[in-house]
Amino acid sequence: MRTQVAIIGAGPAGMLLSHLLAADGVDSVIVEARTEQYVLSRIRAGILEHSSVELLRSAGLGDRLSHKGIEHRGIYLQTPGERHHLDFVDLVGRSVWVYGQTEVQKDLVAARRAADQQIIYQAADAAVHDITTDRPYVTFTVDGKAQRLDAEVIAGCDGSFGPSRAAVPQTVKQVWEKIYPYSWLGVLADVAPSTDELIYAWHPDGFAMHSMRSQTVSRLYLQVPNDTDVKSWSHERIWEALSTRLGASIDGWSLQAGPITESSVLPMRSYVQTPMRHGKLFLAGDAAHIVPPTGAKGLNLAIADVSVLAPALTALIKKNDPTLADDYSHTALQRVWRCTHFSWWMTSMLHISGDPFDAQLQQSQLRWVSSSRAAATGLAENYAGLPLHIG
Amino acid sequence: MRTQVAIIGAGPAGMLLSHLLAADGVDSVIVEARTEQYVLSRIRAGILEHSSVELLRSAGLGDRLSHKGIEHRGIYLQTPGERHHLDFVDLVGRSVWVYGQTEVQKDLVAARRAADQQIIYQAADAAVHDITTDRPYVTFTVDGKAQRLDAEVIAGCDGSFGPSRAAVPQTVKQVWEKIYPYSWLGVLADVAPSTDELIYAWHPDGFAMHSMRSQTVSRLYLQVPNDTDVKSWSHERIWEALSTRLGASIDGWSLQAGPITESSVLPMRSYVQTPMRHGKLFLAGDAAHIVPPTGAKGLNLAIADVSVLAPALTALIKKNDPTLADDYSHTALQRVWRCTHFSWWMTSMLHISGDPFDAQLQQSQLRWVSSSRAAATGLAENYAGLPLHIG
Repeated sequence: MRTQVAIIGAGPAGMLLSHLLAADGVDSVIVEARTEQYVLSRIRAGILEHSSVELLRSAGLGDRLSHKGIEHRGIYLQTPGERHHLDFVDLVGRSVWVYGQTEVQKDLVAARRAADQQIIYQAADAAVHDITTDRPYVTFTVDGKAQRLDAEVIAGCDGSFGPSRAAVPQTVKQVWEKIYPYSWLGVLADVAPSTDELIYAWHPDGFAMHSMRSQTVSRLYLQVPNDTDVKSWSHERIWEALSTRLGASIDGWSLQAGPITESSVLPMRSYVQTPMRHGKLFLAGDAAHIVPPTGAKGLNLAIADVSVLAPALTALIKKNDPTLADDYSHTALQRVWRCTHFSWWMTSMLHISGDPFDAQLQQSQLRWVSSSRAAATGLAENYAGLPLHIG
Repeated sequence: MRTQVAIIGAGPAGMLLSHLLAADGVDSVIVEARTEQYVLSRIRAGILEHSSVELLRSAGLGDRLSHKGIEHRGIYLQTPGERHHLDFVDLVGRSVWVYGQTEVQKDLVAARRAADQQIIYQAADAAVHDITTDRPYVTFTVDGKAQRLDAEVIAGCDGSFGPSRAAVPQTVKQVWEKIYPYSWLGVLADVAPSTDELIYAWHPDGFAMHSMRSQTVSRLYLQVPNDTDVKSWSHERIWEALSTRLGASIDGWSLQAGPITESSVLPMRSYVQTPMRHGKLFLAGDAAHIVPPTGAKGLNLAIADVSVLAPALTALIKKNDPTLADDYSHTALQRVWRCTHFSWWMTSMLHISGDPFDAQLQQSQLRWVSSSRAAATGLAENYAGLPLHIG
């Protein structure tokens, strides 16, 4: 097989890249280790920032988003006894949208199917080859049969466990990593959200968050110790802890419990691998970077990467102009580090570390963010307002 | 002896408190362990924020400040190759003043002398007694002779090693402390500053700072490991390190060296003790809190404490109205925690911790502060713009 861009990974990054390339007349083939159904059912991020929504709309992917998505003006930041609303629209003129990654994936699958995009699912043992030559290729097996996909470039959109990241030699790459000393216990519940917008709650027992997927499905998180066994948390215990942490001394508010349909423990880490391009291999999304989920940046960063990568590959392939491709890693990393810092900042401001001095600093900082327009604007511009390209 | 307010400590906090109380017709006696000359010659802080300047002026202490002080519109924040000016006046309408603590102390000594303020220097073994009764008193010895000072209230302005802080019982007080894993090597040099405003420089070798005391005296700092022996740093080595860190790839700029007249190693820590009032004992300044010097907050916090304490004691003593005195600790601590957080933030953003991930976060954060008006305003309002009372 031969194509112009071999894309490894059929998650949002790879699918969106193929979609944007096709709009510019560049062909791609996507190779994915899992089944379509598996990829569609992965429960991940739920918040799209303004720039992501604009990009999806301009790419013709905004119809269901406009109907099923829920636009939020901001978030609530909470300490015991005080729930403060940050209005991003008021602060930076930009909103965010509740629209799950699963929904984005559905839209992408439908759009690529309509365009007869070639996607090879259940492609095992994918590997990249000759990436520093002009003839890179990908090998994999389907039903036990070896396959080869030749391309002009390879896009590694295959997440943190895929082969692309690992294909960059040790002598070339640099890796930065931080493991946080806590995890999230996340639950999906069939109950209407008890809040109109997301609540981020600092609490002495640990961080808690009230998010949502729709008007009838709530998404809730609790800070728990690393290596927590999800079985040690009964549904009753989960609702009790959520109620305590989210309801802490907030007059007249209570959390509505309901049937929990999914629960899992999510470790938290920050990871960045540079450069994001090596020879003819370009990394995008989780393949290059992981952020803890507190700032809702993971999916948005993947979308931003792809928005930089698609025109760069188009110019390289159609006009033989390498300028944007040569700048890709540097350009994308500006936003990656901004979001890596922001995600670290939100995480470290809201999670209990066990150090009493930290707890006082966190509360002083939260009071400041809730009382200073400059501080609130700083949070808002990172949460809702970053442009796709930052310099 | 008997007075209305017994003040322990003749540094800026104690002297300013006595000055403000006198203006309201409240008598005080100051008890100080050291000599006047010793207190006058301590080299400490050098930057007054806007609110401190306003308070000193309104208290009639602004004449020499207006002539000898140097008003700065902002600071420079630097990473290798980029020196960025933050203009506080433009951002928050407030400036800062270079005017050393030694100069503030001279003004206070002159003013209190002109008013015949009683100050007992070289008072050894000061101790506070009966602070939870209506008849508190201070004992000390002068020339080996025991003395007793009765008062209505006692103000502990005696720093982190004085008896006041220690007099609050363990069952009452809470202490928060953080020791930083680095120190400052600070030097005074008889050379005109090579910069018009302060330079805060992030550098892979460690933080460096170019401050000043006057048009002819420079004050410079280098991040060094804890327990550094000042003798291990020759003057040549100091200038070389300063030149490297402050000059890093900044085109057309060089550091002018000159004779070093003083050098010392300053440990960095954060410390807060609450409550700031116990019975008839009120703590102010370093007696209640210590900040690392990166944000230039130590002296300014002491001035802010005293600006809250003086009217509280006046109302208590002259009108028998305890309202402000009862609120003192809570009111003062709002600003204390804000500045404790800010000082920690400036310190942790600018000093090399040895963790490569931290170094990337720091650089991303410094780029953000240098490119986002909201982020720059956040720094400016903390550095230059905090009101004396924050709520």
